[in-house]
Amino acid sequence: MPRLIVQPIGLRIQAEENETILESLRKSSIMLPSICGGLGTCGKCIIRVVRGDVSPPSGQELKLLNEKLSNGFRLACQTKILKDVEVEIPTENMAHFYKVAIEGVESPVVVNPAVKDVVVEVRKPSLSDLKSDYDRVLEALKVESYKALPLAVLKKLPSILRKSKWNIKVVYHRDLGVLDVLPVDSVKGVYGLAVDIGTTKLVAYLINLKTGETEAVKSMLNPQISFGEDVVSRITYASDYEKTIQLQRVVVEGVNQLTEEVCKTANISPQDIYEVVAVGNTAMHHIFLGIPPKTLGLAPFTPVVQNPINVKASEIGLNVNESGNLYLPPVVAGFVGADAVADALATRIYESNEPCVVVDIGTNTEIILNNGRDLYACSCASGPAFEGARIKHGMRAGLGAIESVYMDSEALKYKVIGGVKPMGICGSGIVDALASLLDAGLLGGNGRFNVSKSPNLFIKSDRDYELIVASSEESDTRNAITITQRDIREIQLAKSAIATGLTLLMRDAGVSLEELSTIYLAGSFGSYINPRSAVRIGLLPNIGLNKVKSVGNTAGTGAKMCLISYEERIKAEDLARRIKFVEFYIKPDFSKIFLKNLNFPTET
Amino acid sequence: MPRLIVQPIGLRIQAEENETILESLRKSSIMLPSICGGLGTCGKCIIRVVRGDVSPPSGQELKLLNEKLSNGFRLACQTKILKDVEVEIPTENMAHFYKVAIEGVESPVVVNPAVKDVVVEVRKPSLSDLKSDYDRVLEALKVESYKALPLAVLKKLPSILRKSKWNIKVVYHRDLGVLDVLPVDSVKGVYGLAVDIGTTKLVAYLINLKTGETEAVKSMLNPQISFGEDVVSRITYASDYEKTIQLQRVVVEGVNQLTEEVCKTANISPQDIYEVVAVGNTAMHHIFLGIPPKTLGLAPFTPVVQNPINVKASEIGLNVNESGNLYLPPVVAGFVGADAVADALATRIYESNEPCVVVDIGTNTEIILNNGRDLYACSCASGPAFEGARIKHGMRAGLGAIESVYMDSEALKYKVIGGVKPMGICGSGIVDALASLLDAGLLGGNGRFNVSKSPNLFIKSDRDYELIVASSEESDTRNAITITQRDIREIQLAKSAIATGLTLLMRDAGVSLEELSTIYLAGSFGSYINPRSAVRIGLLPNIGLNKVKSVGNTAGTGAKMCLISYEERIKAEDLARRIKFVEFYIKPDFSKIFLKNLNFPTET
Repeated sequence: MPRLIVQPIGLRIQAEENETILESLRKSSIMLPSICGGLGTCGKCIIRVVRGDVSPPSGQELKLLNEKLSNGFRLACQTKILKDVEVEIPTENMAHFYKVAIEGVESPVVVNPAVKDVVVEVRKPSLSDLKSDYDRVLEALKVESYKALPLAVLKKLPSILRKSKWNIKVVYHRDLGVLDVLPVDSVKGVYGLAVDIGTTKLVAYLINLKTGETEAVKSMLNPQISFGEDVVSRITYASDYEKTIQLQRVVVEGVNQLTEEVCKTANISPQDIYEVVAVGNTAMHHIFLGIPPKTLGLAPFTPVVQNPINVKASEIGLNVNESGNLYLPPVVAGFVGADAVADALATRIYESNEPCVVVDIGTNTEIILNNGRDLYACSCASGPAFEGARIKHGMRAGLGAIESVYMDSEALKYKVIGGVKPMGICGSGIVDALASLLDAGLLGGNGRFNVSKSPNLFIKSDRDYELIVASSEESDTRNAITITQRDIREIQLAKSAIATGLTLLMRDAGVSLEELSTIYLAGSFGSYINPRSAVRIGLLPNIGLNKVKSVGNTAGTGAKMCLISYEERIKAEDLARRIKFVEFYIKPDFSKIFLKNLNFPTET
Repeated sequence: MPRLIVQPIGLRIQAEENETILESLRKSSIMLPSICGGLGTCGKCIIRVVRGDVSPPSGQELKLLNEKLSNGFRLACQTKILKDVEVEIPTENMAHFYKVAIEGVESPVVVNPAVKDVVVEVRKPSLSDLKSDYDRVLEALKVESYKALPLAVLKKLPSILRKSKWNIKVVYHRDLGVLDVLPVDSVKGVYGLAVDIGTTKLVAYLINLKTGETEAVKSMLNPQISFGEDVVSRITYASDYEKTIQLQRVVVEGVNQLTEEVCKTANISPQDIYEVVAVGNTAMHHIFLGIPPKTLGLAPFTPVVQNPINVKASEIGLNVNESGNLYLPPVVAGFVGADAVADALATRIYESNEPCVVVDIGTNTEIILNNGRDLYACSCASGPAFEGARIKHGMRAGLGAIESVYMDSEALKYKVIGGVKPMGICGSGIVDALASLLDAGLLGGNGRFNVSKSPNLFIKSDRDYELIVASSEESDTRNAITITQRDIREIQLAKSAIATGLTLLMRDAGVSLEELSTIYLAGSFGSYINPRSAVRIGLLPNIGLNKVKSVGNTAGTGAKMCLISYEERIKAEDLARRIKFVEFYIKPDFSKIFLKNLNFPTET
């Protein structure tokens, strides 16, 4: 039976040969819009075939899609599955599917953004005072240097000065100078956009720069997902300049779509956005700028550029004010990006006199540790298992995902996101399931099922046993939702990567487990995971549960802080310089510790 | 009889009603390419109708020109003249027509441009040295600050570093940082382009920045001419943002065309050009940047911006290297532009301990005076009469123009540019003619012909007498080439404007005629005029002819100096701050002096 992989949710569906993609999706409760009843005339069920064998385009498709066909776009109702197929559903049809942490712990900051508007009274020229219009504005602002010269501003300055009778509003950037001039009675706001460019998701926060308030937040899956699920596969894809630009274009388009949505919600124009602050890991950072990330994939994994960056937002195609600035906080190393800097900033771990650590779990997990004096960071290739990839019935945390699992009188019970029939299981569900199995003695420390203890919880597949989480009757996909022996191996690899990173980082920083005052769990997975289960499977060390704090999307809130406060931005730049990057793959005992951490703790 | 005005040469032709434009042009020896013999099939005789009444488009024109028709393009062989018409001939068909001063006095400078290429050995990264690629380049350059961040460079840096084994060539701009990175064995040159944006003409000089040598020079008429012949009419046309951008586009296209031509001559690519230095009067400066010049036309005539400007050349559409810089030296005032600063720089008048002055004659004449201590400048609205406009048979200094006139035993003799039959008379020819008439007593100090002294030199037209310079038999236009009483009035206004400017500037600076050591005559007209004739008609004061020096296109050479030498660029910026602008229209005795200067000197 052919398999249908559905992006961007990462769901795997058993399909039938010659079944249309629309039929197959419907059986898994993915309801694409379709008005014509599958006749191929309404064009609503458009999807993109990323790879795989499907039937050739029908006459209706040739008529409705024409040149879009060459980009892989098809109508789901017309396209039959021949062999394994991977399809991508346009994000606008998928928006309601996701559960992502978009809020995070926010440390209070004094509102003092880099961009402000100021009302100034400009002195009129006279025959005895023939200075240029722009010099008059700088004089009124009490600024001496030209900084960057804003051609777009100069083009409208003379008419605005005279129309508003020499009383104008100036939008001014502390590092860059004048960004805009407006009539004094303009009601136009001054907004900023903080963007978290995750490997999996994009989140955009619209901030009113006068109040520091977040007026709208929108998120979507990173549309780069169809080019590879994890950072390494994106780096591999972006092997040359053209492919980098292709990935850049899709992520910029995604951010532009979010920009449009937040602006609509707040009822403002993208022209009111004068600064964008974006954080992401180093690969996302490079690709966002159109810089080939190839060096990040080759030892010694150095970035092309690491200092803070100010460029015109329009230069990379962002649809905000034409003089708007794009600020990217510095990155620390090839695999410790500006998102890690933002994590440190948002959690304020750098202020603590007691050792503490942030663990930002994702397909790549960043760990930032304060030993009470210095800051250390490392990156762990934890892989996409916690996001549901490489797991037989895995899926991302969205509608229909089993998100938690517990044991109730020798039977497994579960909770599904949205309370619907389950379609698959997400990371927090698997971690819960494994913790319950360990507690019940159904799983050994080496990761082997103890089938004999409760045989009816398992089914035997051709190669090995599988734990049944939801039966085929309960499931929405007509297949039982199971966890395989192989899935457990994937989780072992992922959790050992994180545990080993933390162990080695603590050793380098001279911090013992007893000294560690707090573990901040960041990121979507980190926010929804049950900390007890995480400790139980050895993903986190066994410290008191009161010392584990979920902090949500601190990458996003760190970006917001850099946008709202110039002082926080300077702090972020300082933090990036202070953080010592530890490359632990080269440590002589890395393999030994990694192997040891593959095991599950036998006692809690 | 309808009149046909031919741009960009400014020639006026008496045409016949219902005659085609092609026929009319041919009778004046303007030979447009035409292969089909006027059938309208070859499309070679394309021209643009700027204004006036012509026949509607023929079927052939509809077929060949389609959407071009809406921009006024027509086929000269198909278009009949109904009433007065002004047409513009595409510059590629007109190139051979002009005589413009493109060379100027050049003061020797040490070659030390803002842009240089340097070969550096970049340290390879290792596990103990994980700095970014860009930081390594800056380290090799021994530079600390990032300056402007060159995204285009970062995009290719990682592959070039590795392909050329960490030995690379860096193109570096002193104020802006890294502009390009190249393999160490690249034979690509580092070039600069100096551009003189005159109201009438554009001149582009291609400079090899390693040697300081000019490798190619090309000039063309400023294609803005069809929007108005003088600065004031351009300012009037560019009344709003859209029209400014329209004028900007045509001049940028003109510069791009010249760029292509100089690159072809020197056998290099426009990608090898890393910096453009452009000078022009303040209106040309503003329009080149897309800044509406409206304020320059309204008292107190202040510029929108006056400081030196560095912007990405690509930002205004210049076709040079994508990271290439555009540098514009500062302007002094609304009517004293960067061209005047360049004049002062090229002539080195600022170094002199003795009073001296540069007079750069054009439709707007700039005068820059050194009184031995301080620098003063003013601008005179001399108008386009010296360029042949507003003169009955006037034309610019080009093929077929009478360029000099002299008296030989009571008969007027003349010389024609190119030795062909005359089509009209240019500025230097008129000035010569008036000087000869004054010497011969045929013209009074008040500007009235003394017809009775030599009646056969004159013909009587309906309103007044006209001096015959060339008879209708000698002329190529079938009409006698004459100078009218009204033409003389135009010359009187023009020369008085300049003489009055100089008088008042000298008075403000406390310089007497006796103290003046040198008058530098700059600009095309200033280069071709006979200094004796200029003094004779009172355009220049009566100082010894050995004190008058023609210096050619010093605006262009000043631009070249700023391109070749960073020190000269700093000097130019310093000069602009030092030059005291004198607005003499507001002086109480301006009118009195102006009226007095309208007269011709009665004794030499």
